[in-house]
Amino acid sequence: MDILLILDLFGTFFFAVSGCLLAARRNFDIVGSLLLGSLVGLGGGVIRDLIISQSVPTAFVEPIYLVAPVLAAVIVYFHVLGVQRFRRTLLIFDAGGLALFCVTGTLKALDSGMGPVTSAVLGITTAVGGGVLRDVVANEVPQIFNPRGVYAVPAMLGASLVTLFSQLGWFNAYTGTAVATVVFLLRVLSLRFGWRVPLAGGAKNPGSATD
Amino acid sequence: MDILLILDLFGTFFFAVSGCLLAARRNFDIVGSLLLGSLVGLGGGVIRDLIISQSVPTAFVEPIYLVAPVLAAVIVYFHVLGVQRFRRTLLIFDAGGLALFCVTGTLKALDSGMGPVTSAVLGITTAVGGGVLRDVVANEVPQIFNPRGVYAVPAMLGASLVTLFSQLGWFNAYTGTAVATVVFLLRVLSLRFGWRVPLAGGAKNPGSATD
Amino acid sequence: MDILLILDLFGTFFFAVSGCLLAARRNFDIVGSLLLGSLVGLGGGVIRDLIISQSVPTAFVEPIYLVAPVLAAVIVYFHVLGVQRFRRTLLIFDAGGLALFCVTGTLKALDSGMGPVTSAVLGITTAVGGGVLRDVVANEVPQIFNPRGVYAVPAMLGASLVTLFSQLGWFNAYTGTAVATVVFLLRVLSLRFGWRVPLAGGAKNPGSATD
Repeated sequence: MDILLILDLFGTFFFAVSGCLLAARRNFDIVGSLLLGSLVGLGGGVIRDLIISQSVPTAFVEPIYLVAPVLAAVIVYFHVLGVQRFRRTLLIFDAGGLALFCVTGTLKALDSGMGPVTSAVLGITTAVGGGVLRDVVANEVPQIFNPRGVYAVPAMLGASLVTLFSQLGWFNAYTGTAVATVVFLLRVLSLRFGWRVPLAGGAKNPGSATD
Repeated sequence: MDILLILDLFGTFFFAVSGCLLAARRNFDIVGSLLLGSLVGLGGGVIRDLIISQSVPTAFVEPIYLVAPVLAAVIVYFHVLGVQRFRRTLLIFDAGGLALFCVTGTLKALDSGMGPVTSAVLGITTAVGGGVLRDVVANEVPQIFNPRGVYAVPAMLGASLVTLFSQLGWFNAYTGTAVATVVFLLRVLSLRFGWRVPLAGGAKNPGSATD
Repeated sequence: MDILLILDLFGTFFFAVSGCLLAARRNFDIVGSLLLGSLVGLGGGVIRDLIISQSVPTAFVEPIYLVAPVLAAVIVYFHVLGVQRFRRTLLIFDAGGLALFCVTGTLKALDSGMGPVTSAVLGITTAVGGGVLRDVVANEVPQIFNPRGVYAVPAMLGASLVTLFSQLGWFNAYTGTAVATVVFLLRVLSLRFGWRVPLAGGAKNPGSATD
């Protein structure tokens, strides 16, 4: 069982937990939790596999991927993670999925023969895709658009580093794990300290325009 | 014209009607109705075909599929179904689409050579996909997350039965129709009697946590 | 560099600007702006390419497509378009993307060997897809469902004309640009003069039904 698969399964599990936690918070039932967890955990990867036009998305070939959402729904149902600090827990698991998927997504793209730039872009898409699906389907504004903390920036850095390391032949289980760790810490610390990037409209924001 | 195509067309029509009814309720115009009906009726099947990586999704190969949404938009426009009890009508047609698509979706997956587990999962995806697209695009919380009544459970049962019957060589037009009928009745009765499954967060629901 | 690619790049840019303007208005940050712009600009085309099952979507093969969203995010950030009349600006750029994508989308479908009807449908899907993704991801009701002004009708006309011209062998850079211009003007004038099509529920609208 290779390292890439393991990282991918953990990423799937982390994202699935974030989906199940949101389901619990929104008072969805256990089945809705399982489905939302599956969508978040598997959605990003399925989009990735469809784009690199792999014959059939991995999640639908290796049933082991289905274990992650089931486990996540059970864990959330029995409050293994506790119900206090619910939102923080969701964001931490979401960060874990983000960190692992930007690594595995970029690698998969490179392995499929895509160029470095587009591979990084697809890696970022994989990393942020699941979370966007989660929030959109639950009818919320995606975390990725929440100006408090940085979300895509760590994923962009991670995808770029993975691409760079692969080009230089430096990529291995250790460097891969290191990149994922950096991405995870950047995301979590940005939430803790409220790091921001400038608003889309710059200083005088159109948002304040009266229309 | 084989039974599978007929069931698939009816499922497409039922889902399309649910989309057009929602469009009417939300005061969208007739074109929005046609488009929402098309998305709901064809969306689940297109996702299914993309995942089993069929060369081009059936809906874009056989124009006959386009007849269903057009018919649905016309029927809703002329109030053939009546405008009272609007919501109930929507849910009943939605249940019809759910019942037929979990059968045809699972069969298509099996025919494409996917394993039994993943075929059932894809069948469920096909069955619930259209409804989720409908509600998400109309900016509502998907029916599937409404804790009143069961939605995915009947689809899961239906997809499992279809897989089982196919494995045993019992699947035919009669057993297929029987499974669809069971799924439909389970869904409708669960709405009538308010059957529920436990909430995602179990007894002490994180949703009640103050955060 | 052929005309089709140029039209496609302009369409991508116009849609990307509409996404970045929405991001600015909703007070998303610059990265969210870049991502929303990319989703709107590239989303419709990626869906199109997935459906015609092109090996890998163009946007992920030719990195030049990534220039459009970056340029759009920068332009919006520096208020090159001005912040007054924000909403009108968004709708005008959206109309530009709609006009160009219904032409390029239909052509791509025809080139891929799809039939005339399904090619027109896919062209319409490409044209309206990006805008729907933009509004859905930003958690708003899609413009396409706004009964004030016509949105899909001009795209339907454009896609039909492109299909017709191709069948007759009349399609070239001039007729293609002419069709796009007509679609653009129809959309903009419909907004200016509030043209409408009948509501989905016809005269006595279910929307007014109390349920």
